[in-house]
Amino acid sequence: MRIVRTLSLGLLLAGSSAYSQESLQKLYPVNFSQVAITDPFWKGRMQTVATATLDACILYTENKTGRIRNFEKAATRSGKHEGIYYDDSDVYKAIEAMAYSLKNNPNPAIEKKADEWISKIAAAQLPDGYLNTFYELTDLNKRWTDMEKHEDYCAGHLIEAAIAYHNTTGKRQLLDVATRFTEHIDSTFRRANRPWVSGHQEIELALMRLYHHTSERKYLELAQWFLEQRGKGHGKGVIWDQWKDPDYCQDRLPVKDQREITGHAVRAMYMYAGAADVAAVTNDAGYVKAMNSIWEDVVYRNMYITGGIGAQGTNEGFGLDYDLPNESAYCETCASVGMVFWNQRMNMLSGDSKYIDVLEKSLYNGALDGLSLSGDRFFYGNPLASQATHKRREWFGTACCPSNIARLVSSLGNYVYSHSANAAWVNLYIGSNVRIPMAKEALGLSMQTGYPWKGTTTISITEAPKQSCELRLRQPGWMKEPAPGDLYTYKGGTEGKIQVQLNGKPVDIRMEKGYAVIARKWKKGDVVEIATPMEVRMISSRPELKQNNDRVAIQYGPMVYCVEGADNGKHAWNFIVPSAPSFNVNYEPGLLGGVNTISFTAKGAAASADGQSLTTTQVPVKAIPYFAWNNRGADEMQVWLPTAFKQLKVNTTQQ
Amino acid sequence: MRIVRTLSLGLLLAGSSAYSQESLQKLYPVNFSQVAITDPFWKGRMQTVATATLDACILYTENKTGRIRNFEKAATRSGKHEGIYYDDSDVYKAIEAMAYSLKNNPNPAIEKKADEWISKIAAAQLPDGYLNTFYELTDLNKRWTDMEKHEDYCAGHLIEAAIAYHNTTGKRQLLDVATRFTEHIDSTFRRANRPWVSGHQEIELALMRLYHHTSERKYLELAQWFLEQRGKGHGKGVIWDQWKDPDYCQDRLPVKDQREITGHAVRAMYMYAGAADVAAVTNDAGYVKAMNSIWEDVVYRNMYITGGIGAQGTNEGFGLDYDLPNESAYCETCASVGMVFWNQRMNMLSGDSKYIDVLEKSLYNGALDGLSLSGDRFFYGNPLASQATHKRREWFGTACCPSNIARLVSSLGNYVYSHSANAAWVNLYIGSNVRIPMAKEALGLSMQTGYPWKGTTTISITEAPKQSCELRLRQPGWMKEPAPGDLYTYKGGTEGKIQVQLNGKPVDIRMEKGYAVIARKWKKGDVVEIATPMEVRMISSRPELKQNNDRVAIQYGPMVYCVEGADNGKHAWNFIVPSAPSFNVNYEPGLLGGVNTISFTAKGAAASADGQSLTTTQVPVKAIPYFAWNNRGADEMQVWLPTAFKQLKVNTTQQ
Repeated sequence: MRIVRTLSLGLLLAGSSAYSQESLQKLYPVNFSQVAITDPFWKGRMQTVATATLDACILYTENKTGRIRNFEKAATRSGKHEGIYYDDSDVYKAIEAMAYSLKNNPNPAIEKKADEWISKIAAAQLPDGYLNTFYELTDLNKRWTDMEKHEDYCAGHLIEAAIAYHNTTGKRQLLDVATRFTEHIDSTFRRANRPWVSGHQEIELALMRLYHHTSERKYLELAQWFLEQRGKGHGKGVIWDQWKDPDYCQDRLPVKDQREITGHAVRAMYMYAGAADVAAVTNDAGYVKAMNSIWEDVVYRNMYITGGIGAQGTNEGFGLDYDLPNESAYCETCASVGMVFWNQRMNMLSGDSKYIDVLEKSLYNGALDGLSLSGDRFFYGNPLASQATHKRREWFGTACCPSNIARLVSSLGNYVYSHSANAAWVNLYIGSNVRIPMAKEALGLSMQTGYPWKGTTTISITEAPKQSCELRLRQPGWMKEPAPGDLYTYKGGTEGKIQVQLNGKPVDIRMEKGYAVIARKWKKGDVVEIATPMEVRMISSRPELKQNNDRVAIQYGPMVYCVEGADNGKHAWNFIVPSAPSFNVNYEPGLLGGVNTISFTAKGAAASADGQSLTTTQVPVKAIPYFAWNNRGADEMQVWLPTAFKQLKVNTTQQ
Repeated sequence: MRIVRTLSLGLLLAGSSAYSQESLQKLYPVNFSQVAITDPFWKGRMQTVATATLDACILYTENKTGRIRNFEKAATRSGKHEGIYYDDSDVYKAIEAMAYSLKNNPNPAIEKKADEWISKIAAAQLPDGYLNTFYELTDLNKRWTDMEKHEDYCAGHLIEAAIAYHNTTGKRQLLDVATRFTEHIDSTFRRANRPWVSGHQEIELALMRLYHHTSERKYLELAQWFLEQRGKGHGKGVIWDQWKDPDYCQDRLPVKDQREITGHAVRAMYMYAGAADVAAVTNDAGYVKAMNSIWEDVVYRNMYITGGIGAQGTNEGFGLDYDLPNESAYCETCASVGMVFWNQRMNMLSGDSKYIDVLEKSLYNGALDGLSLSGDRFFYGNPLASQATHKRREWFGTACCPSNIARLVSSLGNYVYSHSANAAWVNLYIGSNVRIPMAKEALGLSMQTGYPWKGTTTISITEAPKQSCELRLRQPGWMKEPAPGDLYTYKGGTEGKIQVQLNGKPVDIRMEKGYAVIARKWKKGDVVEIATPMEVRMISSRPELKQNNDRVAIQYGPMVYCVEGADNGKHAWNFIVPSAPSFNVNYEPGLLGGVNTISFTAKGAAASADGQSLTTTQVPVKAIPYFAWNNRGADEMQVWLPTAFKQLKVNTTQQ
């Protein structure tokens, strides 16, 4: 690893706000660059992203579409813009994914490609800092006239890419482009007191990253300014009107007055992530109050069991409470990525593990489903049932999802640990080596785990600070007894409790907000063994969720399961789950890259040879993790499995 | 009836080509204005169109969309064009429907509205004859630069409207506008020898109507010129390219070299209708040869049992031979209207009843389904199965279908009779009074019929010419034994034969191309009784039509039946049809405006009270005519009913 690529621990500490002040923020992130992933489940995926996914992004960004050509043309202000007005953002997100990936999987060819793109991007920037190929190639006089046209959204993704690339390579060119564009935006709007409601939120969280990266307070102020633009009517007739309501873009009320989740799911997630970032620094409890209410509205009334959100295709977003259709579920991949972003920040504001429970759900199910095992096929929407019609695709006209899932997986290290003044927090069980900054020194950990297939984890202390400090181990939400209000509950099975041994002996643990806390003066070579036993859970939904009445879902550890035709004679809609099935969990190393399957005997209906009569029969059924479906062609699939013969549809040949 | 509104018989005869010359055209139309519809089934529908449907067209054309405002703005060349570039055509089609309707249902308010619109249209015409609100309100320099932009398509509908309105009211203003625009087109293209391939055919058949209306040969020549533009490569890169193939718009080959049906269904139907019109006058057998082959390709490989065509939504048109999915069937209403147009012309070129068999199928099923019983709700697509998702709508962004079905129903009289030198042809059994021109005098008929519910018809002679002449009575195709190659065949039942009595006594008939011929010197008061006995037919498809394997459809007379949830406890996908069901046909006057229903006992599957087991059971099923479905909300529906329990889908709550 080249020295320029390693953030020093000191720099990392400097980047965080001081622990000492009374801050809303309870935890601080441990940057992915400090986390070496060794995990069998994830390491291969990250390598696939580093090769196949980035290759696909490059192929489509540069060759099969005009996204890079737009920058080339914009540099000379000649030629016709290709594609859609927000396509620049895909280039930036691809660079961001490359940057993360280069950190863990150095690759000179990818770095060269990124440098080449960055030169083209820099050449397309105007002297006044403005940078947007759509307006540069159509009519520059129209720039900043239509809040819906994603100029600031693209700027946000430019900023995120620039920071990531600077962190990984130490190269400043893109960061300079991004800060010049940010300066242009700041002077055009905030300092000129000119209203501007972002048509697609993203710049808020990006500016907060830039603030933390540079410690320049003006970026924090600009992020806050963007948030405060909303709900004042400036967007009327521009980003909403009589046909598209202001809830679509979260512009009906000021952010702090919002209490319910509405509208476009990705816009909402990005905005609340940015608001959480601002609140963490400004200690503005107004944002936290709003977001606590909105989070409950999402999680208790509007979230799929997969952690997917945004039930409706019509608005790419939220519909009515408890209206979560399965086959038509939209559940955009980007919205699940957004759930990861927002929930991490909510966890850092509260130190409460419930946010990581949701993050984990979205990560292992709703988000990961968006990426094929081969790394070069994608889902834009992630339904929970299919009649063999839904298929992964190589690319999309609106191509936000491929690079979004790529940047999430490549930066996975961001989500494993966090730290506070005197504690190292383990949020996700993912094999890795890490140095976590404590108040003065670092705590070094090496984690091995059977997760997500087996609930046994070992953490070895590889470096111990002189002072006593806490290790806080998250008890996964899927172990817990359901709480009142939960959308999804399980029956049967035993409530799990996290069990911890220290150096081979049981150790007393204190539970706090879902974390098992062990405080001690650690010694290098200490071994912590953690048991989070997995068992098959049959999940039911609240009765208000009508689409799941008389249906159950199957979960094992963090993984939601589905039944896919490929394992079941092409059919997944032809059986019911009896009330007390006997489940057989079996790790199959050769299947779908190695997964636990869950087999059981269901009840089906058998037709006589002449097709004229029907009787109940036994049907062997094998379920696979949801994220792994549709890697063997288009098949029937269901997550929510019926438990009773009710209405029947005969002959699936009807199309 | 005002005298100006009645075409004299002499004028009608003058409009037709002379019988005496050796012509490809065997039959000539009897204009709807000569046919007074008295039929219980149709008269009410025509009145509904005259009120509810025209009101809906007016509301949406004038108030809820900017279609009329576009003409107002174009008159002063100021303001912004609203809607889509082909929206002018909807105004013209609405006027055409008004004109037909006014003939049978005079209504001063409607006529006033039409006059008002016509003034606005006239005011928007440019001095050089050009008329298109889209280009007049965007950039007139771009007119006639993009063959795809429907300028000539709109002109065609203008011409049709103008003729209809002139026929009904005698008012010339719109006709003058249309002929000026036609003159502009003729001088811009044909006389300037400038290539132009119509991106959406329509002007060809319109020009032929203008030729027959005015007897001006230049219109025939221009129609012919438009047809001959195709298949020469002029459309390359304009109306087709590497993404959209030339088959889409029937521009791969010259029309006379075409042998297969391809592409967009409405474009194809309108073009072949125009080609038939040209061939009928020019006696060009090349067109007839091409169309005979294409017609077989449509009817034997690509037509639904409803007479609907264009299986695919992607191209609004034809897919692979024998690939006729039911639930996703596109079957645009306008394409069924086009089937009526084209098949009438093919019948006139041949004297063969097989074309009317298809016309009848499309009219009573695929086309009529497009219009709700209330007259103010429409289907754009007409699928043959639904999982309660397909719904009639009040209007559409692309609103071709409402006014198209309105003009078809209002001009129904056009399709009942035709005539040749010495014969009156009865094509459809629809109660009506008519005077049919014979060689010298007219034959007056009064028809009463139980059709489409009962196969008994009585025709009384109300006026007899001095010379002997033939009455030719079509034997409906649904009576006949299936022929080899037929897509749809029936098993069981007896082959029907048309039976005819004259003045109470059986009469010898000669069958010729599907018509029963009776030649005699008719006397006023002669009574012809015709029996075309209906029985329930169970229809099977050719095995190549995989979607219908192990399925049957039910037909009774011209009506295709479906099973809809509304009559069957909300379900239509929960039973199989046994091999020899006992059908009970029952006329229900209070149901859906009065229809024959067909009841039978099917086999279903009954769940035990706890939903844990399943047995075969008896299910009473009631079927209704297909055209009448979805008049009671969104429900499950199937035309092709399964005959065997095969794969099952359990619990229809899955969405």
